[in-house]
Amino acid sequence: MTAKTFSPLAPPSRVLLGPGPSDVAPSVLRALSAPTVGHLDPYFLGVMDEVRAMLRVAFGTANTITMPMSGTGSAGMETLFVNLVEPGDRVLVGVNGVFGGRMAEVARRCGAEVTTVDAPWGRPLDPDDLRKATQGARFDAVAIVHAETSTGALTSLEGMRALADSCGALLLVDAVTSLGGVPIDVDTHGVDAIYSGTQKCLSCPPGLAPISLSERAMAKLKARKSKPQSWYLDLELIGSYWGSERAYHHTAPINMLYALHEALRLVIEEGLEARFARHRRHATALAAGLRAMGLELPVPEASRLPPLTLVAIPEGVEDAPVRKALLERYGLEIGGGLGDFKGRAWRIGLMGAASTPRNVMLCLTALAETLASAGYRVAGDPIAAAGAAL
Amino acid sequence: MTAKTFSPLAPPSRVLLGPGPSDVAPSVLRALSAPTVGHLDPYFLGVMDEVRAMLRVAFGTANTITMPMSGTGSAGMETLFVNLVEPGDRVLVGVNGVFGGRMAEVARRCGAEVTTVDAPWGRPLDPDDLRKATQGARFDAVAIVHAETSTGALTSLEGMRALADSCGALLLVDAVTSLGGVPIDVDTHGVDAIYSGTQKCLSCPPGLAPISLSERAMAKLKARKSKPQSWYLDLELIGSYWGSERAYHHTAPINMLYALHEALRLVIEEGLEARFARHRRHATALAAGLRAMGLELPVPEASRLPPLTLVAIPEGVEDAPVRKALLERYGLEIGGGLGDFKGRAWRIGLMGAASTPRNVMLCLTALAETLASAGYRVAGDPIAAAGAAL
Repeated sequence: MTAKTFSPLAPPSRVLLGPGPSDVAPSVLRALSAPTVGHLDPYFLGVMDEVRAMLRVAFGTANTITMPMSGTGSAGMETLFVNLVEPGDRVLVGVNGVFGGRMAEVARRCGAEVTTVDAPWGRPLDPDDLRKATQGARFDAVAIVHAETSTGALTSLEGMRALADSCGALLLVDAVTSLGGVPIDVDTHGVDAIYSGTQKCLSCPPGLAPISLSERAMAKLKARKSKPQSWYLDLELIGSYWGSERAYHHTAPINMLYALHEALRLVIEEGLEARFARHRRHATALAAGLRAMGLELPVPEASRLPPLTLVAIPEGVEDAPVRKALLERYGLEIGGGLGDFKGRAWRIGLMGAASTPRNVMLCLTALAETLASAGYRVAGDPIAAAGAAL
Repeated sequence: MTAKTFSPLAPPSRVLLGPGPSDVAPSVLRALSAPTVGHLDPYFLGVMDEVRAMLRVAFGTANTITMPMSGTGSAGMETLFVNLVEPGDRVLVGVNGVFGGRMAEVARRCGAEVTTVDAPWGRPLDPDDLRKATQGARFDAVAIVHAETSTGALTSLEGMRALADSCGALLLVDAVTSLGGVPIDVDTHGVDAIYSGTQKCLSCPPGLAPISLSERAMAKLKARKSKPQSWYLDLELIGSYWGSERAYHHTAPINMLYALHEALRLVIEEGLEARFARHRRHATALAAGLRAMGLELPVPEASRLPPLTLVAIPEGVEDAPVRKALLERYGLEIGGGLGDFKGRAWRIGLMGAASTPRNVMLCLTALAETLASAGYRVAGDPIAAAGAAL
């Protein structure tokens, strides 16, 4: 055994404007550190019920099976596929970024026969391409990413139910970067199964994956010929704990659920419409400021995801040194690009508690100064342009 | 959308003497609520490295792959099986409680051909039975539970390496209720893969699953013919994030890792030997007090797990009303029995920060008073008996 000792943590002060985690509201951090109680404590069972009720509001659903899984957003993704897809099932996946690709991979690991419909990174999925792929075909599930965290492109859920119906499929949706930031309306859009993460527009630390399943999805689960390959994510077992039976499955992450309770409480206190409007307003201001600096936004305006803005790195400017300078001088985190945009674009998040006029201005100021230091000639007046849009 | 509002949380004050979660030290709760930083922030990468270094000390190993999985203890169990077991593999599982049974179930869901060696609940696994089952046989993995959380029985790891070698198997171990509370010594005992949880003897909230894998286990993983069925728990992918490549896999549960860092720091500050001695001393005192009250401890003394004591519910006393009274009058949580012991025994945990003289005395006093109210005649003087052992 080593005698080495370790010092207590003292994390630096950051402003988190990357693709998540986003800044966490002080009251959420306080809730996180409330005294731990048992996972079968009557008090905690009440917390669970309230979390489910609030998640239903946030998702826009009356689905009974609406609850947080004990893992991050990717565990939410895996939950949908291990429960709703059986070996040999035919799954159509729309791929316009990292997370569509990940869904295809996860579906394959469940033994699915996967067909992908691809769209360029930075663009939404094309409904015509999806229609062509489903025409005359039968699928067990159609899976799309509502808000592509890797690019900031939003694919509308309009018409997706009809598309899924046309090929007899369940409709599965990734809403990791949309929940709490842009409208989802699960029931209106006839979504069968959806998952999200807590560390984006809910502004809760990462570690939980809210999900919701329709009656139709639950019927498919109940009709399975084989058990789900994952015990940890088996929704029939977990449903017995979160439902009225309270049967022990695994020890729920108590304190993370305290934090999610508080984060959802803030969402409901603000009101969904007001929250969506706030995300739109600040994204519009940020975009105006970035364009005033002469920067390009690769995602077409109509498909731009308010919580996450993709901005092209200008010719002659290097990616890493700029992000390093922003972090070291301003404590400001923005995200690098992924896949097709690696080294070619940044991702700027204005999510949840971090979507504020202050952060719009801080980001523009810090970026303008840093780009100027890197030799880029900032064209116009980003502050005036953003200010006009606030 | 509903107009219903929700109140901020105000959890009641509890003393957690059940089978986990255990009481969390104040400095761990403070660490939990430290400001969130990004999962690729240089500061956070340093936190990850320190967590790994401290976990190696706690497990007693030099294994490179030693890290916390982003889920609870059961996710740790699933991690071992989805990575180390391929369809058709032969797996021998020792079953002497809930968690052995769960390992068998998880292994089956990975397509393994499972053989179980059973022992009565409340007893350790019998090495002779294990030897008989392995004699002349070949297995890909032998899996045993070191500390059965469902009964409080400890199965010694002595000789298990030789047993696994005799049948050509990897040695897999559940250490959920032993890590930080009783010696494990992964390298000394030649354990190939081990998992634990944070909410037991580490006294960190639930939500992470520390694991460690030997070189031999990693070789088996690298030689797989097929990808692990779980993407979320795929150790080759996750190892790239926790290793030097820092490749993004999923967003790490930042704040939970802060808490684990502080919990491990306290373990190392106290020293493993001192910590184990503390758990033994308080368990001995508790046992002396319980016996002085005329209560029976179903687990034989030599196999009793210091962090968790099984106590038989006396004839004529009902389970639920006693636990309810302890919770409501004293804010004291103890655990109910599981499986064979459901309604027949309680589980009293003295884990991590909760293993104190104060809690020994509180538990005995509260239990004596509650049992007396329930009509049970408390025989001797539990306080004197426990005090003599402290």
